[in-house]
Amino acid sequence: MINITLPDGTVRQYEKGTTAQDIAKSISEGLARKVLAASVNGQVWDSSRPIDKDASLKLLTWSDTDGKNTFWHSSAHLMAEAVESMFPGVKFWVGPPVDNGFYYDMDLGDKKMNEEDLVVLEKKMNELAKKNSSYTRKEISKADAVKYFAEKGDEYKLDLLSNLTDGEITFYTQGDFTDLCRGPHIPNTSFIKAIKLTSIAGAYWKGDEKNKMLTRVYGVTYPSQKELDEYLQMLEEAKKRDHRKLGKELSIYTMDDDVGQGLIMWLPNGTVIIEELEKLAKETEQAAGYKRVVTPHIAKESMYLTSGHLPYYADSMYPPMEMDGEKYYLRSMNCPHHHKIFAAEPKSYRDLPYRIAEYGTVYRYEQSGELFGLMRVRCLHMNDAHIYCTKEQFNDEFRAVNDMYLKYFKIFGIEKYVMRLSLHSPDKLGIKYVNEPELWKETETMVRNVLTESKIPYVEVQDEAAFYGPKIDVQIFSAIGREFTLATNQVDFSQGRSFKLEYTDPSNKPETPLIIHRAPLGTHERFIGFLLEQYAGKLPLWLSPVQVKVLPISDKFMDYAKSVSDKLKKSDIRCEVDDRNEKIGKKIRDTELMKVPYMLVVGEKEMNDNKVAVRRQGKGDLGVKTVEEFMATALEEIKNRSGE
Amino acid sequence: MINITLPDGTVRQYEKGTTAQDIAKSISEGLARKVLAASVNGQVWDSSRPIDKDASLKLLTWSDTDGKNTFWHSSAHLMAEAVESMFPGVKFWVGPPVDNGFYYDMDLGDKKMNEEDLVVLEKKMNELAKKNSSYTRKEISKADAVKYFAEKGDEYKLDLLSNLTDGEITFYTQGDFTDLCRGPHIPNTSFIKAIKLTSIAGAYWKGDEKNKMLTRVYGVTYPSQKELDEYLQMLEEAKKRDHRKLGKELSIYTMDDDVGQGLIMWLPNGTVIIEELEKLAKETEQAAGYKRVVTPHIAKESMYLTSGHLPYYADSMYPPMEMDGEKYYLRSMNCPHHHKIFAAEPKSYRDLPYRIAEYGTVYRYEQSGELFGLMRVRCLHMNDAHIYCTKEQFNDEFRAVNDMYLKYFKIFGIEKYVMRLSLHSPDKLGIKYVNEPELWKETETMVRNVLTESKIPYVEVQDEAAFYGPKIDVQIFSAIGREFTLATNQVDFSQGRSFKLEYTDPSNKPETPLIIHRAPLGTHERFIGFLLEQYAGKLPLWLSPVQVKVLPISDKFMDYAKSVSDKLKKSDIRCEVDDRNEKIGKKIRDTELMKVPYMLVVGEKEMNDNKVAVRRQGKGDLGVKTVEEFMATALEEIKNRSGE
Repeated sequence: MINITLPDGTVRQYEKGTTAQDIAKSISEGLARKVLAASVNGQVWDSSRPIDKDASLKLLTWSDTDGKNTFWHSSAHLMAEAVESMFPGVKFWVGPPVDNGFYYDMDLGDKKMNEEDLVVLEKKMNELAKKNSSYTRKEISKADAVKYFAEKGDEYKLDLLSNLTDGEITFYTQGDFTDLCRGPHIPNTSFIKAIKLTSIAGAYWKGDEKNKMLTRVYGVTYPSQKELDEYLQMLEEAKKRDHRKLGKELSIYTMDDDVGQGLIMWLPNGTVIIEELEKLAKETEQAAGYKRVVTPHIAKESMYLTSGHLPYYADSMYPPMEMDGEKYYLRSMNCPHHHKIFAAEPKSYRDLPYRIAEYGTVYRYEQSGELFGLMRVRCLHMNDAHIYCTKEQFNDEFRAVNDMYLKYFKIFGIEKYVMRLSLHSPDKLGIKYVNEPELWKETETMVRNVLTESKIPYVEVQDEAAFYGPKIDVQIFSAIGREFTLATNQVDFSQGRSFKLEYTDPSNKPETPLIIHRAPLGTHERFIGFLLEQYAGKLPLWLSPVQVKVLPISDKFMDYAKSVSDKLKKSDIRCEVDDRNEKIGKKIRDTELMKVPYMLVVGEKEMNDNKVAVRRQGKGDLGVKTVEEFMATALEEIKNRSGE
Repeated sequence: MINITLPDGTVRQYEKGTTAQDIAKSISEGLARKVLAASVNGQVWDSSRPIDKDASLKLLTWSDTDGKNTFWHSSAHLMAEAVESMFPGVKFWVGPPVDNGFYYDMDLGDKKMNEEDLVVLEKKMNELAKKNSSYTRKEISKADAVKYFAEKGDEYKLDLLSNLTDGEITFYTQGDFTDLCRGPHIPNTSFIKAIKLTSIAGAYWKGDEKNKMLTRVYGVTYPSQKELDEYLQMLEEAKKRDHRKLGKELSIYTMDDDVGQGLIMWLPNGTVIIEELEKLAKETEQAAGYKRVVTPHIAKESMYLTSGHLPYYADSMYPPMEMDGEKYYLRSMNCPHHHKIFAAEPKSYRDLPYRIAEYGTVYRYEQSGELFGLMRVRCLHMNDAHIYCTKEQFNDEFRAVNDMYLKYFKIFGIEKYVMRLSLHSPDKLGIKYVNEPELWKETETMVRNVLTESKIPYVEVQDEAAFYGPKIDVQIFSAIGREFTLATNQVDFSQGRSFKLEYTDPSNKPETPLIIHRAPLGTHERFIGFLLEQYAGKLPLWLSPVQVKVLPISDKFMDYAKSVSDKLKKSDIRCEVDDRNEKIGKKIRDTELMKVPYMLVVGEKEMNDNKVAVRRQGKGDLGVKTVEEFMATALEEIKNRSGE
């Protein structure tokens, strides 16, 4: 008998050679039907693979990332089987799971595949899936494996084999298809209930443009048709809410070849959003006792050698400017400048917590292939701040930062979020992490306590801390369920010492402060991209670049329209008059398209009664009101930063 | 007889060989006593030099820069005469006039000069001045000149001679002193009535640290003791108001070796001033119909080749960063980015005037020797904007910008200012200026008309325009009379075409807009430096980093003090409590030193009556008031941006 330890700590005894599948069945048949793979002593295995020794076991289902990846990787094999049946002689390169589905790269020889073929392939895959073929694993010697693929004349798999050594090579077979693969796989093809092949693209072998162009087919599969339908519908919705599309339609931002890739230029409409976000942050931070600073966007090499950004982070930085025999760098983070502000004047314990904030601009080098709209850029405006405090103050300060996140989530209608507590990995002390085992333990406990006390849902992840301390990364989900990494809240017990930061304690002895790095709204770039998706471009009133548009029914009412607009502008409502010589229907349609929250239609009757006919974007007519009535409602909505 | 044309256009006839001095006498004896030099056909001459041909003539007095420079340069010769009498064998290098006075560099051999020597030298200079010696000019051949200085063994003057050619060499003599000098000089030493030698410094020969260190003596002279006394008093006052001294005392800004020279880090107090200035500018510009944009601080080489900054302005830019096979530059001006914003979306005449503003950050390379506090820096925050308009709109737009300057002058108590209309120079068309003679004429007239219409005092200066059009530079004078170049208002008829900027006119034809470049508050750096001097650090309430300090007489009243402070903070008044365990006298003294405008002293009586004892910085007791009374006054003062 062997001992199997389950995640909750219970230990069960099984026959040697039992499988995760068996164990699942021993718990419940229903569970067994959901198990896609298993984590055995931390390694992901086929759920059908015999376990011969005592082990810790976690059953993996669709709700585990590793379960999902196994499912999608098995789907790639299923697709390969279908492709081979339609395109005999096809040779395969690699077929991994990706963020939302899977792909397989293949060499079709002199044949071509087109969009219609995908439909036929899908049908074929569905047929094969229903056959309920098992994915069977076979260990094989390198010699035999090479022989197999040499006979097939498959130079791609032979290339893969050349990098593998005896003892680690396995083949997987389902139905008529056999692949060189380290696995793991789901038990059998019948788990795959719903299939969609999404696109074909070209992809250079090994990503090198000097190599042959292979055919890459992307697909996505689900354990039920309902889930696939929901996913495809979300994709449709995401397309409509694409921040790049909305960014252009609503004149939010632009880019230009002469300026450079990944460098956003914010048009007037986008700048209004930026300024409203900054106003919110400044108000919130002022109330929370932060002070503001302004620092340059460059510094000398020596600063980044002290901070450790050089040489470790050099790849993510812009190259240096050499001047007066010195190297200057565009900053990729604001912290070193803030440390210098802390150090500029002597500090005592009475000055702590010392909280300084800046809408800092940082520059990061991203590969041009990684750049993506507002989501991956090279110049970022970050709502940044650093809090210098004593150990005794840490709990309150760190908790206050987390509470600030929650406050923001409420304002922006963010209902689903996860906090990830990122910890260090003891075996990487001195390599990836500052070598201070005791301080790691202490600060990790401090952060965990804050999360527990504030009853915030969180997950713990090993080996994802910053090099200077543990951190909380915040993942938020947009209205259509897409995930965004928003922001970060980090403890730093290391840079204070590197920068020789000091305060004097009550007995006048020098002490090093703890530092909290935090950026609750992340960057303007990513957050505004998120907001465009979150609201499908229909921003709440307080964030809208144009809040009200006055639409005169004809030129006769232009003067009245302008007088209404002037009144609103005097109260700082962003208002415009549609002074084009167009029919009122077109004026309304165009204003709806620009997603302006309020339209005030004015004609004969409104002018004579000194009133306006109010329309709400997407909601239609709200009735006739006096300008003062309308203004009072609008100003209240703005003041409350109402979400609708 | 020759014809002499005076500045007002009148022509007078004189004997050939007449001098400016003679002509001055023919007008009035009083004038003649004031003439220091003369501009003859645009060249500055000795007023005693015979005029042989028809000429245009301007008599130069103390109120002309060239008159003043002639006076100070002659004073340098007088000082040299005194030095030679005290230090026989001294050799002289150069002795030019500078911004406020003059210096002479000299090689004293193995002798040394100290501060006490300056007093003796001053006395000697006064004696020599009273001798009424004429400055006499003598043309001399190069051979004779070389012979003269070779005999003296003066390698410095021989070095200067080596760069001169026959026909342009002159000697000047007054009293016992003869110098190689191109002149001009004042008529005689008796004009110099008041003398102050201000300092001794070391200066490498030719500014090269590999060369010998010479002795540099600085001095300043005036035509009357009263003027010198006033100047020295102003210097004293300027020392007290030195923005570097105040910047440190009031915790406004700091610099750091690891960040780099000329790169300002704004401490929380300085940042408050910045944010108040930005708020003022944003309010003013929003009311004037500007929109705001945000653009990156870098761009690719191609952008600056289009704008013409490269190669012409390359020396003033930071060196490039080479990345992905491209060169990126930190921007030295915001205009190219703004042009790209204009070009990002199609524009019609209905979109004009298109006014976009940004607190843009620019980087300029200044020699490290030129860097000076906040006045000469390498990273500047500029209150910048560009207005794209039609020719018909130009007058109103340009005038509105000038009016904005005047509005700001009033807010900041700037009573003395001069606008300089900087024009092109026709002989430099195609070299220093865009080669468009007609457009220059047209736009210069347009700008002149605006100035004339708005009755703003201005001076015209040739050959100081921007390369793309004429401009107005604004010189302002601080409360102690020191001059600052603040800001600029420029027409640009050239970059619109370089950047292919277009709008469609009412008949749908493409047209190029005129561009106005303007920055009424200049840069944060220079303007805050100016404000510190202007107000001697005692900033008006609305600009003060801490507006109110509550001073409890003892710890017993701490809670009451905090409740007062909380009330004020809720109304956005920047308020702090002095919670130190100090005597009230010391608290008041320290708060006065930090130049906090209001102090609220609270003790037994105030607490019981729910009141505060109000003190105004520099004015003392203003009596006991309720918190509400005080708040109402303070809020009114802040809202009005009152200057006191």
